[in-house]
Amino acid sequence: MATAPSAKLTPLLKDELDIVIPTIRNLDFLEMWRPFFEQYHLIIVQDGDPSKKIRVPDGFDYQLYNRNDVNRILGPKASCISFKDSACRCFGYLVSKKKYIFTIDDDCFVAKDPSGKEINALEQHIKNLLTPSTTHFFNTLYDPYREGADFVRGYPFSLREGAPTAVSHGLWLNIPDYDAPTQLVKPLERNTRYVDAVMTVPKGTLFPMCGMNLAFDRELIGPAMYFGLMGDGQPIGRYDDMWAGWCMKVICDHLGLGVKTGLPYIWHSKASSPFVNLKKEYKGIFWQEKAIPFFQSVSLPKECSSVEKCYLALAGEVKSKLGEVDPYFIKLADAMVTWIEAWNMVNSPGEKPAMTSLPNATSKK
Amino acid sequence: MATAPSAKLTPLLKDELDIVIPTIRNLDFLEMWRPFFEQYHLIIVQDGDPSKKIRVPDGFDYQLYNRNDVNRILGPKASCISFKDSACRCFGYLVSKKKYIFTIDDDCFVAKDPSGKEINALEQHIKNLLTPSTTHFFNTLYDPYREGADFVRGYPFSLREGAPTAVSHGLWLNIPDYDAPTQLVKPLERNTRYVDAVMTVPKGTLFPMCGMNLAFDRELIGPAMYFGLMGDGQPIGRYDDMWAGWCMKVICDHLGLGVKTGLPYIWHSKASSPFVNLKKEYKGIFWQEKAIPFFQSVSLPKECSSVEKCYLALAGEVKSKLGEVDPYFIKLADAMVTWIEAWNMVNSPGEKPAMTSLPNATSKK
Repeated sequence: MATAPSAKLTPLLKDELDIVIPTIRNLDFLEMWRPFFEQYHLIIVQDGDPSKKIRVPDGFDYQLYNRNDVNRILGPKASCISFKDSACRCFGYLVSKKKYIFTIDDDCFVAKDPSGKEINALEQHIKNLLTPSTTHFFNTLYDPYREGADFVRGYPFSLREGAPTAVSHGLWLNIPDYDAPTQLVKPLERNTRYVDAVMTVPKGTLFPMCGMNLAFDRELIGPAMYFGLMGDGQPIGRYDDMWAGWCMKVICDHLGLGVKTGLPYIWHSKASSPFVNLKKEYKGIFWQEKAIPFFQSVSLPKECSSVEKCYLALAGEVKSKLGEVDPYFIKLADAMVTWIEAWNMVNSPGEKPAMTSLPNATSKK
Repeated sequence: MATAPSAKLTPLLKDELDIVIPTIRNLDFLEMWRPFFEQYHLIIVQDGDPSKKIRVPDGFDYQLYNRNDVNRILGPKASCISFKDSACRCFGYLVSKKKYIFTIDDDCFVAKDPSGKEINALEQHIKNLLTPSTTHFFNTLYDPYREGADFVRGYPFSLREGAPTAVSHGLWLNIPDYDAPTQLVKPLERNTRYVDAVMTVPKGTLFPMCGMNLAFDRELIGPAMYFGLMGDGQPIGRYDDMWAGWCMKVICDHLGLGVKTGLPYIWHSKASSPFVNLKKEYKGIFWQEKAIPFFQSVSLPKECSSVEKCYLALAGEVKSKLGEVDPYFIKLADAMVTWIEAWNMVNSPGEKPAMTSLPNATSKK
């Protein structure tokens, strides 16, 4: 008996995951992802001019939100959503009603593993999210929950249950995610190394979270996934995902949640201009030297038992500690509070079952 | 013009590194390692019956120490060196006069990378030791000092110098380093996954250090590489390397030194008996549940500025905190002190240039 083509089998978490894509252009890149994404719901956050028409290939189930939609849905609280910066993607996290989010950039394509097989990045992210993390002790054979691997000798048995995984950070073949200075110095460097591993970023360790190829459990960590104030009218860009990563990691560590990085790879097609990037990053390069020690030492009060409470406490710390570095951080701390207010407004318990009550953006099924 | 065979080129750190091998049998396994080890000096620590003659293949430059040599050289302090357990290998670290040590078990053979090429494990360890570690921040593209890789966007520039690397922990293809319970449950599991990465174990994170395939900078961390009291007359075995790893990591974190794990792989040929192992590990399985929280929370006084001082302070903490768990830890803490005394005796500044003044064991060049 012939089996149905695999793309038509029901994929993992089909009705529990939204794919969030920030964009300013036609989404032709989805053609390559069709076998992997077609059965999922997409949330497209259109950045820039809202009158521009974004073309989405036929056959995808999506909602598209432009700036007018953001303003209509959030009202005055729309001020926390960045404009002309991919940071706007976090609006998609906020309006999603699903348990899981996968977010991907529109210049990311399907990569191949060393055997030449196309990598189903989303499936790997889901596997990462559905298995625990090893946050409290390092396993030298990498992910012990993967087939063919386990905990090695000397790994305490009491820690083998692991921690619930909140975030899965995927990597990039071809164009590596370098900052402007490194891009300028190494314009031709390409990432060709396929490292067949998924790692837990240990408790107490920060890492640079890139938003290009990222999945998370929205119920566990969603409100911490705010991508900050970047782009139009702001003194900084290209630190949106980093900011979210630092905030998220501190909160995951506090709440005992796990963060993984490694597989899956996507194929990152095109390096952005290092000159444009340097302008965006310029202040961030200085500020991160203050921000990292801040995040490495900040501690959240014990009574912060929810992500929202943690995030508000963190906003307070940002204001008082990083506000001294630059007034921008005071504005950012205020936006962090606004973000939580917006999150709670859209995601209040009364709203949850009423998915259709949201004023609808461009929608197609 | 033909080039000379690469094995005859002078290998990296030829005169600055000793290879330490604990054994109870003829060292035929060295034949396979000949192209990679032949130009280095070997320190062979013969365990068990000292009257037994161990055969070493021709052409290797080595010194062989048996139990009689250990007793003669250390006198009463020889009590800190384990008998009938591979923990005895640390005697080799103590009598070495080199800056670097590579230690390997005699059931470990040359592995092949995915392209089929034989892996020069020692060369990779040396590369790991000679490049810095990224202890304070996690780099998602793994070792940024490796060719074709770098620090990713968001990695603070002030941290890109990294930390001096003290330890390089290599992995194993074929037989994974599992504990007895896992061996019993998964007798057929083999490690076939070649993960092409070198990772820094971040500051504040403990890991299970295996002694099978391990290199370190003896000048930076040597005195912390004590493999404890195991085997004959002791209630525990197979925790020698774990103990060294926990002690070493706490001290590296305190002193700002780096620890790497990942490449190189060796081919581990034969699993030891899970039944024998269970007997050796039995108490350790319980004790590690107390030891890990101890090492995760222990802190060394600021004035401990050398490895020796750190180690003695740690021995004091072991005695007072873990002594409550079992009297064994009191004995172990005393042995830790004896080890440092023995280290200082053999490695006192006056002794250092007098390499030949050491009562010589079986020596061959």
